[in-house]
Amino acid sequence: MQRIIWAVILSFAIAVVLGPVFIPWLKKLKFGQTIYDLGPQSHKVKQGTPTMGGIIFAVPMILVPLILHVGGFGQPYLPMALISTLGFGLVGFVDDYIKVSKKRSLGLTPMQKIVPQVVISAALAVWAYLTPSIGSKLIVPFTTIEWDLGILYIPVMMFILVGTTNSANLLDGVDGLLSGCSLIDFATMVIVCLALPAVKSLDSGVYLNMAIFCGAAAGAVLGFLRFNTHPASVFMGDVGSFTIGGALVAVTMVTRTSLLLPVIALAMFVSSLSDIIQVGYFKYTKKKTGTGKRVFRMAPLHHHFELGGMPETRIVWMYMAVTALLCLVTLTMFI
Amino acid sequence: MQRIIWAVILSFAIAVVLGPVFIPWLKKLKFGQTIYDLGPQSHKVKQGTPTMGGIIFAVPMILVPLILHVGGFGQPYLPMALISTLGFGLVGFVDDYIKVSKKRSLGLTPMQKIVPQVVISAALAVWAYLTPSIGSKLIVPFTTIEWDLGILYIPVMMFILVGTTNSANLLDGVDGLLSGCSLIDFATMVIVCLALPAVKSLDSGVYLNMAIFCGAAAGAVLGFLRFNTHPASVFMGDVGSFTIGGALVAVTMVTRTSLLLPVIALAMFVSSLSDIIQVGYFKYTKKKTGTGKRVFRMAPLHHHFELGGMPETRIVWMYMAVTALLCLVTLTMFI
Repeated sequence: MQRIIWAVILSFAIAVVLGPVFIPWLKKLKFGQTIYDLGPQSHKVKQGTPTMGGIIFAVPMILVPLILHVGGFGQPYLPMALISTLGFGLVGFVDDYIKVSKKRSLGLTPMQKIVPQVVISAALAVWAYLTPSIGSKLIVPFTTIEWDLGILYIPVMMFILVGTTNSANLLDGVDGLLSGCSLIDFATMVIVCLALPAVKSLDSGVYLNMAIFCGAAAGAVLGFLRFNTHPASVFMGDVGSFTIGGALVAVTMVTRTSLLLPVIALAMFVSSLSDIIQVGYFKYTKKKTGTGKRVFRMAPLHHHFELGGMPETRIVWMYMAVTALLCLVTLTMFI
Repeated sequence: MQRIIWAVILSFAIAVVLGPVFIPWLKKLKFGQTIYDLGPQSHKVKQGTPTMGGIIFAVPMILVPLILHVGGFGQPYLPMALISTLGFGLVGFVDDYIKVSKKRSLGLTPMQKIVPQVVISAALAVWAYLTPSIGSKLIVPFTTIEWDLGILYIPVMMFILVGTTNSANLLDGVDGLLSGCSLIDFATMVIVCLALPAVKSLDSGVYLNMAIFCGAAAGAVLGFLRFNTHPASVFMGDVGSFTIGGALVAVTMVTRTSLLLPVIALAMFVSSLSDIIQVGYFKYTKKKTGTGKRVFRMAPLHHHFELGGMPETRIVWMYMAVTALLCLVTLTMFI
């Protein structure tokens, strides 16, 4: 327990110290975000705020579990989580780097982005499938059922991995939104990792490393919020959102709780869903009537609220409050 | 456990629903805050924002534990907590009401404010002292020692009661600052109430009501943050800050954990301390050299940061982050 709290504090401290070192350097290298051309007009003022700040929390998220793990490499859990975090994070990093160096809003082409994601996902899904203590079963939320997907586990988990990381990426659009929501998610997963062994009669030592991993992630993101709360002095960039997505989804994969994601990470889920609805409806109406119609003022959903006049800080409150309540309800499964 | 989560959700829902009913009504009655003449200049723009918004969370904080309590009136714990919350809250209410109706920044005179506080504190301290399961012992933080104060318990507890409520009042000076910090404190006290019986071999049923009370308080404050996050559409007023102070200190009184307050409620503690240092140093230098000098740009401490150019949202982040880390460290005492 104390080791988890040390992980939180150490991670927090590293992030808070890295910020003032890293942000001026990003600014000097002109790694300012070229604001997404399709975002709200009001975001144009954010031009010049440096991006790639995700590195500030990615470093402690990866370093601290390596320092504080308890014989973590006896099981493949921690390695899986670290590889997922680092792997997806790297895809985001390359994307950011191209955006910044080419000074254009879009980095990698969709194909260049999706192929490495699919490769990482396939490797992780197969690895999990072949690990006896993970296998092909997923815990069904709010039941005692464990759903055995058999060989289908691999494509399903690949979909969850790619879906979650890209949803995290979509949720990152308002100062402190993804960092705030993921803070609550990681804190929740600390408790899940601690409580799961008792509920499922598993070896608690195995999950302790995952609790440390989640604690480190929570501390790192809390520290990063120092610089990312509205008014943000740095954006996390794709390197940040993919790191968060990769870390969160990996923890649910090794704890077999991935089906909880639409609940505890509803914010990410609705970001993707609203995007799909928006594009789908536009294409459908365009085909049907000749002019495309929109369901939301702008997708993902948080931009819809923003264009409706809601202050950024209030959007963050709303998303974080809903996330906190859903996480609380989820915890009743375990405690 | 589930009852606590219901308390959080129900309280949250009541607060969120009360806001839109109550805020326009406060505005109509011109209960706009007459901004504290001694506050930072930048706060002048806040003139007109309604105050007394604390009623939005005071209602669920008191109602929800009454609805959801589990045979709570067999022990005096819940009644003590409710009386403290309501009693201190009423003092704040009267103060606010006078401020608003007289359109001046100061409400009750210091004497009119302190006398009822001392009366409430004396009643609560004596009541606690005479309750066998509370008595005269206080748990010393981070030790297994229980410090028996004997009859001195009464003046010490009175000091803690008056000190905490007034410190909460001082901390309320930046949008979402007191609500945010107290949210973390109440959440922490939920866990303390749940964990304490196991650590101290006590009857857990007795503390369940206090956990429900804290859960309701956390939910209510979380809901209130909808309206109080920067840019605030309502201030909590003295009715709010005294309600929060009264609730928090009462929970620590019945769980005998009041000595934890300087840790988990460090934000409140430093607010008072900085005020005392500022005034003391000013008077000392005035007497010594003829001109009074200041230690802080402005006291309480959060105004010092504000005048140093830190955005309000960043001050809130800093106070909440420090509170969260201290609460985590505190929890190692119990779990």
